[in-house]
Amino acid sequence: MKEEISGEWFVGFIEGEGNFHVSLIKNYKSSSWKFPFEYYPILQFRIFLREDDLDVLNKIKDFLKIGKIYKKKLDYNRKLGFKARDQYYYVLSSLKDLLKLKKVLDKHPFHTKKRKDKDIFFRVLKLKLHKKHLVKEGYEEIINLTKNLNSGDRENFKKGNNRKIYILKDKIT
Amino acid sequence: MKEEISGEWFVGFIEGEGNFHVSLIKNYKSSSWKFPFEYYPILQFRIFLREDDLDVLNKIKDFLKIGKIYKKKLDYNRKLGFKARDQYYYVLSSLKDLLKLKKVLDKHPFHTKKRKDKDIFFRVLKLKLHKKHLVKEGYEEIINLTKNLNSGDRENFKKGNNRKIYILKDKIT
Repeated sequence: MKEEISGEWFVGFIEGEGNFHVSLIKNYKSSSWKFPFEYYPILQFRIFLREDDLDVLNKIKDFLKIGKIYKKKLDYNRKLGFKARDQYYYVLSSLKDLLKLKKVLDKHPFHTKKRKDKDIFFRVLKLKLHKKHLVKEGYEEIINLTKNLNSGDRENFKKGNNRKIYILKDKIT
Repeated sequence: MKEEISGEWFVGFIEGEGNFHVSLIKNYKSSSWKFPFEYYPILQFRIFLREDDLDVLNKIKDFLKIGKIYKKKLDYNRKLGFKARDQYYYVLSSLKDLLKLKKVLDKHPFHTKKRKDKDIFFRVLKLKLHKKHLVKEGYEEIINLTKNLNSGDRENFKKGNNRKIYILKDKIT
């Protein structure tokens, strides 16, 4: 049963389960450097699955030959009384790895509205690769693109809202 | 952009979005006939998507050449204050159509825990096709299989609970 996944299967699967995410980090700086605008964009491609589907995340990692898998503990949700199982999630976040993902995805057609998210995401990636996030025009394009990502889930996006980013801990593979 | 879907894409997609469902209908009878046991099993394969993904349901219908698409209005959820968009769902429910689905799915490997659901579902289908739901042993096997469908979502299954079945109305295609 250890059959490898195919590119077409992978695209079908991520049309349902994949998440093209751009986090906007407020007042981003390191010790030596400060981003010149309000929100620094960080790109992540993610697949969240319940803990009993860890196997398929490993297959995906084997298929793409990049990425990390992390555990997301939902103790807090359970404490609040929600019936929640822990999750595992697969993440790609370096620009280099995201370019590799793009190469794979470009080979197979998308059929759902996820295509729009993918196209927005890779447009932001391109802008960032060309350092356009450091100039006003490119920065503003990224902010506008990000608002339209994930079918307008950010329709309530307001300046001042910090966007959630998953802290990469509990790495397991 | 009107590219057809492939079998592999379809399997990848339904591993995330497909739903193999067995409804157990209490005290099932028609004017001329009464099912001899407590719960009558009805099988449905379903894909629920948000209304802005109707296109892909049509592509799936074109690909399989069977099935119906219905609209599920979520007025009630909105009335309760939930932010809910209407959905469309694709349904296969006749034994004949489900056998056709099986033929397509048998050609491509599954990679997630949905494989287990698929196998349980088609085992129930086989029992029903061979009229085993009309004899005690087959009926009991169906009830036990159904409890384990969808990763034990029915772990709280109790006799007396009627299972939800979607009423097929608002057919749009």
